[in-house]
Amino acid sequence: MTGFYTIKWLEDGRVSMLDQRLLPQRVEYNAYSDLQSVARAIKEMVIRGAPAIGAAAAYGLALVPWHASTDDLEKVLNDIQEGVNILRKARPTAVNLFWAVNRMLDVLEREDFQSVEELKTSFYNEARKIELEDVEINQAIARNAYPLIPDQADIIHHCNTGSLAAVDYGTALGVIRWAHEQGKEVFTYVDETRPRLQGSRLTAWELQQYGVPFKVIVDSASGHFLRSGAVDLCIVGTDRVAANGDVANKIGTYNLAVVAKENEIPFYVAVPKSTIDLNTESGDEIEIEERDSREVTHIGENQITPDGTDVGNPAFDITPAEYVTAFITEQGIVRPPYPENLAGLFSKE
Amino acid sequence: MTGFYTIKWLEDGRVSMLDQRLLPQRVEYNAYSDLQSVARAIKEMVIRGAPAIGAAAAYGLALVPWHASTDDLEKVLNDIQEGVNILRKARPTAVNLFWAVNRMLDVLEREDFQSVEELKTSFYNEARKIELEDVEINQAIARNAYPLIPDQADIIHHCNTGSLAAVDYGTALGVIRWAHEQGKEVFTYVDETRPRLQGSRLTAWELQQYGVPFKVIVDSASGHFLRSGAVDLCIVGTDRVAANGDVANKIGTYNLAVVAKENEIPFYVAVPKSTIDLNTESGDEIEIEERDSREVTHIGENQITPDGTDVGNPAFDITPAEYVTAFITEQGIVRPPYPENLAGLFSKE
Repeated sequence: MTGFYTIKWLEDGRVSMLDQRLLPQRVEYNAYSDLQSVARAIKEMVIRGAPAIGAAAAYGLALVPWHASTDDLEKVLNDIQEGVNILRKARPTAVNLFWAVNRMLDVLEREDFQSVEELKTSFYNEARKIELEDVEINQAIARNAYPLIPDQADIIHHCNTGSLAAVDYGTALGVIRWAHEQGKEVFTYVDETRPRLQGSRLTAWELQQYGVPFKVIVDSASGHFLRSGAVDLCIVGTDRVAANGDVANKIGTYNLAVVAKENEIPFYVAVPKSTIDLNTESGDEIEIEERDSREVTHIGENQITPDGTDVGNPAFDITPAEYVTAFITEQGIVRPPYPENLAGLFSKE
Repeated sequence: MTGFYTIKWLEDGRVSMLDQRLLPQRVEYNAYSDLQSVARAIKEMVIRGAPAIGAAAAYGLALVPWHASTDDLEKVLNDIQEGVNILRKARPTAVNLFWAVNRMLDVLEREDFQSVEELKTSFYNEARKIELEDVEINQAIARNAYPLIPDQADIIHHCNTGSLAAVDYGTALGVIRWAHEQGKEVFTYVDETRPRLQGSRLTAWELQQYGVPFKVIVDSASGHFLRSGAVDLCIVGTDRVAANGDVANKIGTYNLAVVAKENEIPFYVAVPKSTIDLNTESGDEIEIEERDSREVTHIGENQITPDGTDVGNPAFDITPAEYVTAFITEQGIVRPPYPENLAGLFSKE
């Protein structure tokens, strides 16, 4: 038990989310009753992290029939289609968003709905299922990673991939939390993760809740610690893995991976199958979101740069597969060659 | 002419420095009349950058006989010795500080002073000479670098190494400014340089003064741009170069150098000879300053991390010589093998 939750369906038909923009200073929850505001919450990063975005998108769609103001099934199905379009634009890099939306749409394919009421129940149930599965999947990832984590491991972690990035546990940070809960001594170097500082704001806060010892470092200090022999492994999450094993993840992941490889330190990517996109051939096909320049020019209300400063602010980068020591999935560890072995995960289904 | 200065001796016997902690929001100068407060200004980074620190240290020592309250030469020489000790502790990694202090001490060796008045004049003259030489040296570095900069070059630059880091021009940023002044089209990706944000605060401000187009990026985004083919070269300054070519510089330099090499992008280090320390055999011998954790936990008055967060905040890292394509010095370009070729700079004297 962590004493907080990332996303939860409230009995009155609203979706409640911890407002992660306010952490660690304030723990506040917002409740949303329509898809538009859920999409906005995703876009504005009230909620972030690939699996959490997936759950939010699913619940966002569940809200459409739940609060439908008409019994006309066609109209509600139209609203759902509109909602799908809105959601898909909220965070273009996040494959879980597309994945969750598609799972909801599959419900429409599978069942022959006669009424809005039926649709309402099925949509809620599917979203709830996505939520619960996420926790199971993350725990399976953590269990599978366990043998890779030495006792007294010193670990570099980038961005936030914990409970806050998921429904619970999360991916890469879930691996660290699980190892700690199982009694291994683990220490985490927390990349602060500019520009949005998910490391120093969110990961530091989560690790405090779990009692895992850590130090926050600036992103560009990772090499200093990797080179000094202080680090046993790096572990990150991902927003999308292409069929060839290229990894889209928070900006800075590529730098970390290159420097880890140069120092022969293992670089692991914790990833639920839902984040692996066999339809994306390689990282070259992944659109890199350019975010608001204000993330770089300001911190909070403080302006850092001179007026009129131009900014390059890619939210993600691509880490080519060759830098990934292994993927840790809910079905086990995947090692190279990735094209075959990632595809193999899906043929086992 | 840039319309500002970094350090200047005022006629009333004070040393004036632009308070770089306030840039780019405010352009304010502080004037110091005793060595202790100059040492504090160095420590607190009112002034920073290896050559600027050297000039500040020299003028700091010149203040001692200038404002001596006694005619007793022995007492003043004692005060100078005490001042030397205070200065040496102000920024332990900055070799220019030691170099400038030693140059001032050489004056004592060279001349047989009979009075405080003579000492006062000689000390002031030597400090002034260090100041003027710095500008000449930096312009020579910029001229020597010129053939290495393609027209329409896209350049990544880390930290601040411009006029603000020196008496004028600076090292790596001086190279960019010079190329621009000579009519080459150059574009600069400015690493923001956490934790103190010298890039987004100082380098961005300087480049605006010179009219050089630029974009500020977070440090960990450098790899994204290097990998995408957008960058022709990287150029940085340094706080100390060891005899084997290892480079101590602002934290993050090592990450940048490794990722540049991985992408076969030239990585240049602009360095005055005074920053090359043949007495330091390799980077392993260089003490890495650990700075205040507040630089990471706060930005301005804003606290980012949760209360009680532990921090690792090394101010510098070591970039092994193998990552350096060439050093650019006032005597010309130095390429590998570095142990021989760096030593060669000094035997030509």
